[in-house]
Amino acid sequence: MKKLTLLTLVFASILGFSQTDETVLRTIYTQSLTNGKSYDWLNHLSNQIGSRLSGSLGAEKAVAYTKEELEKLGLDKVWLQPVMVPRWIRGAKEYAFIESKPGKTTDVNICALGGSIATPALGLKANVVEVHNFEELEKLGKENIEGKIVFYNRPMQADLIQTFNAYGGCVNQRYAGALEAAKYGAVGVIVRSMNLRLDDLPHTGSMTYGDLPANKRIPSAAISTNDAELLSTMLTLNKNIQFYFKQSCKQLADVQSYNVIGEITGSEFPNEYMIVGGHLDSWDLGDGSHDDGAGVVQSMDVLRLLKESGIKPKRSIRVVLFMNEENGLRGGNKYAEVAKQKGENHIFALESDAGGFTPRGFSFDCTDAAFEQVLSWQKLFKPYLIHFFEKGGSGADVGPLKTDSNVLCGLRPDSQRYFDHHHASNDTFDAINKRELELGAATMTSLVYLFDKYGVNPISNPSELKD
Amino acid sequence: MKKLTLLTLVFASILGFSQTDETVLRTIYTQSLTNGKSYDWLNHLSNQIGSRLSGSLGAEKAVAYTKEELEKLGLDKVWLQPVMVPRWIRGAKEYAFIESKPGKTTDVNICALGGSIATPALGLKANVVEVHNFEELEKLGKENIEGKIVFYNRPMQADLIQTFNAYGGCVNQRYAGALEAAKYGAVGVIVRSMNLRLDDLPHTGSMTYGDLPANKRIPSAAISTNDAELLSTMLTLNKNIQFYFKQSCKQLADVQSYNVIGEITGSEFPNEYMIVGGHLDSWDLGDGSHDDGAGVVQSMDVLRLLKESGIKPKRSIRVVLFMNEENGLRGGNKYAEVAKQKGENHIFALESDAGGFTPRGFSFDCTDAAFEQVLSWQKLFKPYLIHFFEKGGSGADVGPLKTDSNVLCGLRPDSQRYFDHHHASNDTFDAINKRELELGAATMTSLVYLFDKYGVNPISNPSELKD
Repeated sequence: MKKLTLLTLVFASILGFSQTDETVLRTIYTQSLTNGKSYDWLNHLSNQIGSRLSGSLGAEKAVAYTKEELEKLGLDKVWLQPVMVPRWIRGAKEYAFIESKPGKTTDVNICALGGSIATPALGLKANVVEVHNFEELEKLGKENIEGKIVFYNRPMQADLIQTFNAYGGCVNQRYAGALEAAKYGAVGVIVRSMNLRLDDLPHTGSMTYGDLPANKRIPSAAISTNDAELLSTMLTLNKNIQFYFKQSCKQLADVQSYNVIGEITGSEFPNEYMIVGGHLDSWDLGDGSHDDGAGVVQSMDVLRLLKESGIKPKRSIRVVLFMNEENGLRGGNKYAEVAKQKGENHIFALESDAGGFTPRGFSFDCTDAAFEQVLSWQKLFKPYLIHFFEKGGSGADVGPLKTDSNVLCGLRPDSQRYFDHHHASNDTFDAINKRELELGAATMTSLVYLFDKYGVNPISNPSELKD
Repeated sequence: MKKLTLLTLVFASILGFSQTDETVLRTIYTQSLTNGKSYDWLNHLSNQIGSRLSGSLGAEKAVAYTKEELEKLGLDKVWLQPVMVPRWIRGAKEYAFIESKPGKTTDVNICALGGSIATPALGLKANVVEVHNFEELEKLGKENIEGKIVFYNRPMQADLIQTFNAYGGCVNQRYAGALEAAKYGAVGVIVRSMNLRLDDLPHTGSMTYGDLPANKRIPSAAISTNDAELLSTMLTLNKNIQFYFKQSCKQLADVQSYNVIGEITGSEFPNEYMIVGGHLDSWDLGDGSHDDGAGVVQSMDVLRLLKESGIKPKRSIRVVLFMNEENGLRGGNKYAEVAKQKGENHIFALESDAGGFTPRGFSFDCTDAAFEQVLSWQKLFKPYLIHFFEKGGSGADVGPLKTDSNVLCGLRPDSQRYFDHHHASNDTFDAINKRELELGAATMTSLVYLFDKYGVNPISNPSELKD
C-alpha cells in the first residue's frame, strides 16, 4: 500500500511536471510564432531608426522608441537609467588603395575601426608588412616595422564548428593590433575583416590604444577579406608596394545616454531579480539587425510573451536594453553598479547577443548544481529542437552581475551565418528570418519561466556538501 | 587477472572507438570546411547552368556537367542511366489581376503549377470562391462552384516547429486542388503559395489531374501569400469580384534524360551497395540552389571527401543524381527498377533534399535494431552540433529502394528558411551559405563512413528474437 502511494505520487509528479511545463512551453512557442511582436519591433528599429552607435541620434531615437513600446505592454515599471557613453564618429567614408608602382593603383574596401584616430587629412601612404600574430611582429622588430603599415592577415579558422571560437581566435589583431604595432614604430594598421567568407565588405569593431599617449597613436582600419587576399598576393609579388588610406573618424566628448528597463514585479519574491536583455547600440555601417537589434526585441518580447501566456512571475523579471556594448560596455557596468548600490539580488541574467538565427540552446556561467537543474529541463526543449546546453560564457552586458551563486547565460543561435554580417554594412533587416527570431524569443521566455518557477538550485556542487 | 584483461580489452575498445572514429569524423569535417568542393560545384550548377526542369536544356547541361566532374574524381565507375522523363514548359510569363468592378483592376503575382494546362489564349475570367480544404468544397457543392475559380487559401501552420510538417499539412491543396475542384464544375484554381512568410513571390510545384479526361481539366496556378491575403480581403468586402489569369504552359511528349551515377567499388563487400544522392532536376523559376542543387553537390562531395580523408570503403558506395524528382519521380523509380533487375543489394540509401542549410541530423526509415545502432553513434556527432536522430521519412528518390532490412535516411537541415525559397524565383545561389552547405556534406560523409565500417545491424527488434 505504501509502495502504491509512493508510485501514485511519483506518477502524479511526473504528470504534473509533464502537463504543466510542457503545456506552458507549447503556449509560449505558439504565441511567439503566431502572435509575436519581435519582428515588427525590429522592422521599426532597423528600417525606421537604423544604426545606433552610442551617442548618435539613432541611439537616442532607439531609447525613446523602446521605452515607449515597453510602456504599451502594461509592465509594472518602465524607466531610463542614465549612463555616460563615449561618442566616436566615422566622418567621411574611408578611401584606400594599393599602389603597385607609381601611378598604378587598385582601390580596396576598408573602414575605420571603432575608436581609431583619423589619418592625416590627405591620408597616409607607406610600405606594408604582413603579419599573422603578435609573435611575428616581435620577431620582425622595429627595424622592419618602423615607418610602415602593419597588415594583420590571420584568417578566422574555418574548421571550427562554432564560429564564435574562430572569432575569439582572431579578434586580438583587431582590438590590440594598433597598440602592439605602435610599439615598433608602425604608422598605421590594416586588419583583415573578422569574416569567414570571402567578400568585399569591411567589418568594423572596437580597438584600443591602451595607455598609449595621444602622439603615439596610429590609425587602424579593417579591410575586406577579398582585398586582404589581394593585398597579400600583391605583397608576395612585390614587397615594395605601398598602401594608402584616408579616414576622418574622431573621438568626441562623452555624452549622456540610457539603459532602457522594464519590470514585471514578482508576486512572491519581488526582491529576487531575473533579467533578460540585449544591447541597444550597434555599429554604424548596417542597421544592427543581428547585432543586436535581434537581442533587444527578443528580450522585450520575453516580458510580453510571459503576460500573453498567462504567466504571473513569482520573481521580479526585468528586460534591460543596454547601451554601449560595442565600444565601452558602459551600460552593462552601470546597471551592475546601480544594482549593487541598491543591494538588489540578481539571481539570473540572460543575454541574447549572438544574432537572430535559429536558436540552438544556451551557454551557462553558473554552479554545477544550477547547471544540473538546467539539464533536468532539457527534455522540455526537445520538441523545439533546442539541444545545446553547455557551460561557458554568457554575454558581455550581463557579465558584471556575476556572483558565486547566480546564473548568467547567453542564448546560442546557429552561428554559421553570423560573421557574414557582423559589424558590416549587410547587418540589415533583410538578413533576418521572422520565424528564427521568434523561436529565439520563445526559447528565452521558456528558460525564464522555468527559472522563475523553480528558482536557482543553491547547492553548487555535491562535493561542497562534504567539506 | 581475468578481470584486468577484460578491463584492458574494454579500455582498448573504448580508445579504439574514440580515437579512430572521432579522428576520422574530425578529418572529414575539416576537409569539407577547408577544402570542400560542394560550393564551387553549386556555383557552376546555379550560376552557369541555372534551372533544370526535366527535359530542359538546363537539365541536359547539368547531366553533362556533373558526369564530367565525377569523372575527374577518379572513382571506379561513372555512368549515365537512361530514363524517359515528362516535359512540361511554362511558356510566356503568367499574368493575373483582381477586378473589383469593371475597369478597376489590381495586378497580382501568380505562376502556373507544374503539370497544369494553359488557360484559353486570351485568359480566363470568373468569379471566385474561397475555400480552405476539400470538405468546404464538398459542402459548397456544384451549385456554388460551377463556372467559378476556386481559391484555396489554407496557410501553412506557423506554430509547427518543423516546417516540413506545415508543408505536409497544406500541399494537398496544390497537388489535388484542380482535380477536386473540377468535380464541381470549377473553371480554374488559384492556390495560396506554400510559403510561411508574407511576400510577393508565387511558389510553383507539382499538381495532378488524376484520371480526369482532357476536356475536364482546368488550369491551376499559385498566388503569392501577400496576394492571397489581398484576394481574401477583397472577397470579404465583395463576393462578386472577378479574377483573371492567363498562362501558356503545356505538357509535351516525354524525352530521354538520365540519372548520373558514380561508384567507389567496395574492397570487401562489393555487392553491398550504399547510395547517397539528391535530385538534379529543379523547378524553373529560380536556379534550384536549395532544391536540390545543394543535395546534388553534397552527395558528389561525399565520395570525394571519403577519398580525401583516406577512407577505402568496404562496401560499394554510389552517388546517384536523380532526374525528375519534382514532377514524376521517374529517376528514383528507374534506379530502383534497374537495381532490382540486377539483384543489387542496397543496404543503405541517404538523400539530401531539404535544402543546404545548417545540418541538424537525419531521419531514418529502418528497423529498430538499425536505429539503435545509429543512436550509439550519436555522441560522435555532438562536436558538430548534429543532434537530430529520429525515425521518420527519408527522401522521395530513395523511397523505391525500401526493403525490410535496409536503411533509408534523409539529411535534416535547419528548416526555418526553406519554404521562403522553395519552388520560387528566390531559390538562388545567394541564399546559400558556404559553411552550412559544407557542414551538410561532412555530416552525410560521416554517416556513410560509419555504416560502411560497421554495416547495418541485422537484428531488427529484440522482440523478434523471442519469436
